[in-house]
Amino acid sequence: RKRILVTGGAGFVGSHLIDRLMLEGHEVIVADNFFTGRKRNIEHWIGHENFELINHDIVNPLYIEVDQIYHLASPASPLHYMYNPVKTIKVNTMGTINMLGLARRVRARLLFASTSEVYGDPEAHPQKETYFGNVNPFGPRSCYDESKRVAEATCYAYAKQEGINIRIARIFNTYGPRMHMNDGRVVSNFILQALQNEPITVYGHGKQTRSFQYVSDLVDGLISLMNSNYSMPMNLGNPDEYTIEQFAFKIKDLVGSKAPIVYKDPVVDDPKQRRPDITLAKSWLNWEPKVLINDGLNKTIAYFRNELLVKH
Amino acid sequence: RKRILVTGGAGFVGSHLIDRLMLEGHEVIVADNFFTGRKRNIEHWIGHENFELINHDIVNPLYIEVDQIYHLASPASPLHYMYNPVKTIKVNTMGTINMLGLARRVRARLLFASTSEVYGDPEAHPQKETYFGNVNPFGPRSCYDESKRVAEATCYAYAKQEGINIRIARIFNTYGPRMHMNDGRVVSNFILQALQNEPITVYGHGKQTRSFQYVSDLVDGLISLMNSNYSMPMNLGNPDEYTIEQFAFKIKDLVGSKAPIVYKDPVVDDPKQRRPDITLAKSWLNWEPKVLINDGLNKTIAYFRNELLVKH
Ligand SMILES: NC(=O)c1ccc[n+]([C@@H]2O[C@H](COP(=O)([O-])OP(=O)(O)OC[C@H]3O[C@@H](n4cnc5c(N)ncnc54)[C@H](O)[C@@H]3O)[C@@H](O)[C@H]2O)c1
Ligand SMILES: NC(=O)c1ccc[n+]([C@@H]2O[C@H](COP(=O)([O-])OP(=O)(O)OC[C@H]3O[C@@H](n4cnc5c(N)ncnc54)[C@H](O)[C@@H]3O)[C@@H](O)[C@H]2O)c1
Ligand SMILES: O=c1ccn([C@@H]2O[C@H](COP(=O)(O)OP(=O)(O)O)[C@@H](O)[C@H]2O)c(=O)[nH]1
Ligand SMILES: O=c1ccn([C@@H]2O[C@H](COP(=O)(O)OP(=O)(O)O)[C@@H](O)[C@H]2O)c(=O)[nH]1
Ligand SMILES: O=c1ccn([C@@H]2O[C@H](COP(=O)(O)OP(=O)(O)O)[C@@H](O)[C@H]2O)c(=O)[nH]1
Ligand SMILES: O=c1ccn([C@@H]2O[C@H](COP(=O)(O)OP(=O)(O)O)[C@@H](O)[C@H]2O)c(=O)[nH]1
Repeated sequence: RKRILVTGGAGFVGSHLIDRLMLEGHEVIVADNFFTGRKRNIEHWIGHENFELINHDIVNPLYIEVDQIYHLASPASPLHYMYNPVKTIKVNTMGTINMLGLARRVRARLLFASTSEVYGDPEAHPQKETYFGNVNPFGPRSCYDESKRVAEATCYAYAKQEGINIRIARIFNTYGPRMHMNDGRVVSNFILQALQNEPITVYGHGKQTRSFQYVSDLVDGLISLMNSNYSMPMNLGNPDEYTIEQFAFKIKDLVGSKAPIVYKDPVVDDPKQRRPDITLAKSWLNWEPKVLINDGLNKTIAYFRNELLVKH
Repeated sequence: RKRILVTGGAGFVGSHLIDRLMLEGHEVIVADNFFTGRKRNIEHWIGHENFELINHDIVNPLYIEVDQIYHLASPASPLHYMYNPVKTIKVNTMGTINMLGLARRVRARLLFASTSEVYGDPEAHPQKETYFGNVNPFGPRSCYDESKRVAEATCYAYAKQEGINIRIARIFNTYGPRMHMNDGRVVSNFILQALQNEPITVYGHGKQTRSFQYVSDLVDGLISLMNSNYSMPMNLGNPDEYTIEQFAFKIKDLVGSKAPIVYKDPVVDDPKQRRPDITLAKSWLNWEPKVLINDGLNKTIAYFRNELLVKH
């Protein structure tokens, strides 16, 4: 039984992680400023004696006592992180420095939620952890990609210099219930469009690929990585790869929608392909994704269907 | 006539820049914490009515009134930036955010001293500004490389979001008088070794290349870039390229030394080749390096010869 801080715990991934940690009997503290997170995602724990929610912006220092830190606070979808690029950089630089400073003071172990975006528009395929990436340091996505990269470097620096115990999860595209309705990501957009019989918007020709992981698989991976002995960056993702065009048809089918599929302008610096090589996670954590895409999507569709009912 | 802040102005490049700005009649303010800089480099200006020296660590906010900011503060040699990697990251992330915050408040133009290290161990040769680089985000050099990259991204974010006028100079290896004696860089090491008839230490097989620019050329370029209309990253360097082994022989020759050349262990993540493509600077600034390597080296050798005399 541990005292565990989850930054960004009111968000999509964080709230699922918290469900698991609470069920395991840990004491859980959430620090979140509700930029993209919602109280609703974690309201079922409010009032529980093992649970504490701190309304806190991690760009500012935080002084508490904990054993482990899951450091997830950061806008995650392109729409959200480009909304205020300066703030995105502050969260991942100053915010990460603060959490490492906290880890240093209380000698806690810290897991940093990095991203497949550190590989940028990858020329290597699938992406291994040893690939150095192809990131534009001076473009619209750079506020996220580069601040995640330097956050990894900051973890390395605190590990080397201060002996902090760190874990780096490079998370690939993840979906599931509690995804933000308006985050502009492909899964939420396509499902909402299909459910409402509105045009399904494919950006560019739709030949770019992504590989989608269901959130419960990610949570397994995160907990397993935190409690492992592996301290270098590790991919967590599902290698099940689709072109965005295929993915549009798949969602249309699963929803049973009549929505037309339309092609919009391509996005600047949009990665053309993405699929994790998960050899490392398999061998170190004995982890691999279990949820099949149709099962995961059906649960997510059910969630959004209900959200639309609640909203109206 | 302008009010100009130079962060890191007591260092090697900064002090030469200040000489030029002072001679042009500007008001110059230096902010430096003397981590690697020295008062000696600028002592000839202390007491001048246009000159002010602030002993200040830019990781902390600075509230002054200026028109232009040359933001140079950062350790620069591998030995110095690896000495305290956490601090190196803080300087380039928090320090750069502070200087951009200052620029925002007083509507000043900011030039950021970036580096050829943003290209990492480059696969493209020579390096153009459009090349995205090959940087290890999780290794001994990452504290410098990644924090310089995210500093560029931060400039981009403030430019886009706050309308700040920014300039990005990607500086390639530069040498000249006032280089730090013990910074471990190849120019200072080889000259000092040659002058003292101590073994000239080539790391690895010495087939890796660098291209060396004399400091007065860089200062021309920096001032010219600051006052130009170009706001994307621009290389400033001399394309004159040598293998490190050739360079050892050249310095030995120029010094007229009997020092033996010895081969040491290679350095982790040492870039194998580096040469700037300066087409952009030529066409936008009408700038190109003028000082020949032998002339520049002879001046630098004379400087170090004198330093050794003073020291003993
Ligand atoms: N979901 C994915 O596909 C994916 C992929 C790669 C990486 N990640 C990473 O995983 C983490 C969680 O992503 P998510 O999908 O749950 O996103 P999310 O937006 O649902 O959750 C992020 C949470 O962080 C909070 N937050 C943002 N800025 C904060 C600040 N300054 N102080 C405190 N809290 C702050 C938000 O309010 C939100 O609750 C992020 O770090 C993200 O970069 C997610
Ligand atoms: N010299 C080169 O070959 C080279 C190449 C590429 C980029 N650069 C960049 O040019 C700039 C100047 O380099 P240099 O060769 O003159 O190095 P330098 O070490 O001689 O000068 C750096 C100056 O910054 C100061 N400084 C460091 N941390 C500071 C802090 N926290 N607050 C205030 N001042 C601080 C130091 O005291 C020093 O005076 C650096 O940003 C460096 O990254 C230099
Ligand atoms: O319990 C703590 C300890 C530190 N910090 C923050 O973490 C930063 C980095 O910590 P570090 O120990 O590296 O820096 P220092 O305190 O020496 O500036 C500090 O500036 C604080 O803002 C925090 O938020 N909680
Ligand atoms: O309505 C949408 C939203 C996204 N995309 C594409 O889907 C992919 C995944 O985008 P998302 O924003 O979900 O995540 P990313 O992996 O780019 O961070 C990208 O190629 C987007 O251009 C799309 O075609 N239509
Ligand atoms: O004259 C100024 C104005 C701002 N800042 C610093 O710059 C940072 C970023 O400024 P910005 O305006 O982006 O942020 P805010 O003040 O809104 O936090 C601030 O936190 C301050 O620490 C500074 O050093 N001098
Ligand atoms: O005593 C030395 C110092 C450096 N180098 C090599 O010279 C090159 C330039 O090193 P420096 O530290 O000057 O700058 P860098 O370009 O690596 O930042 C690198 O390949 C180093 O391994 C060397 O062979 N002997």
